[in-house]
Amino acid sequence: MIASNGFGTIERDRILAEDSLFIVARDKYPVSAGHSLVIVRRVVARFQELTADEKARLMTWVDWCIAHLLRTLEPKPDGFNVGLNDGPAAGQTVLQVHVHIIPRYQGDVADPRGGVRWVVPDNARYWADQAVDLLGPPRKAS
Amino acid sequence: MIASNGFGTIERDRILAEDSLFIVARDKYPVSAGHSLVIVRRVVARFQELTADEKARLMTWVDWCIAHLLRTLEPKPDGFNVGLNDGPAAGQTVLQVHVHIIPRYQGDVADPRGGVRWVVPDNARYWADQAVDLLGPPRKAS
Repeated sequence: MIASNGFGTIERDRILAEDSLFIVARDKYPVSAGHSLVIVRRVVARFQELTADEKARLMTWVDWCIAHLLRTLEPKPDGFNVGLNDGPAAGQTVLQVHVHIIPRYQGDVADPRGGVRWVVPDNARYWADQAVDLLGPPRKAS
Repeated sequence: MIASNGFGTIERDRILAEDSLFIVARDKYPVSAGHSLVIVRRVVARFQELTADEKARLMTWVDWCIAHLLRTLEPKPDGFNVGLNDGPAAGQTVLQVHVHIIPRYQGDVADPRGGVRWVVPDNARYWADQAVDLLGPPRKAS
């Protein structure tokens, strides 16, 4: 079940909110407490396949989801990563557009700097640039 | 230069487009060819500080930026990661709201699966779940 065409039926107890265009649900394999997804109802894979209405509504739901998680999660998250994997080359495994809302907590990783830059780990750590001349190429993510 | 309050002046040759609310510019330390940022003009750190107009316009510029990169980059990207680091706990290092648009290319990393899930590397690899019982905890990103 590494790649699939769509989410299929989402268990009701995972659903936080929904309307005619979107479902907001908990991620089935959360990377952090409260990790949620804003999922378009239509089974379309790529961001550019969304209609103008869907794109606009997507932002509304992302906004709602962050506010909802700040209101309901205990402990309260210190930050969020909001991210879209658009296409298998970008790590998309379920081919139905969905945005990850990932609550973050102080100290949940040793060094959070870079955040979404870590999708390409070899180049993520730009703050190592000044050390490159002395120490060789930036280290890989560990 | 690890954290800063804002982007300050952005070199003109990095700017792809702009309007009264946003600047779209190349990332100074690109993790992939074409890595760009949609940057709000006001120096506000957190997503929830954006006005309703800015949130709506942000989506318009993200959409524009993806289309622009598909139109102009050679080779053409196979996918995109779109991501926001909201708060230092989420890896934000420049405290002015900006969304990363990261073009992705087939084979640019050995296994792209998970994409933005890798902001929390220990939990990113959900497809390892079935092997956990046999093989121990999921491996860390390498």
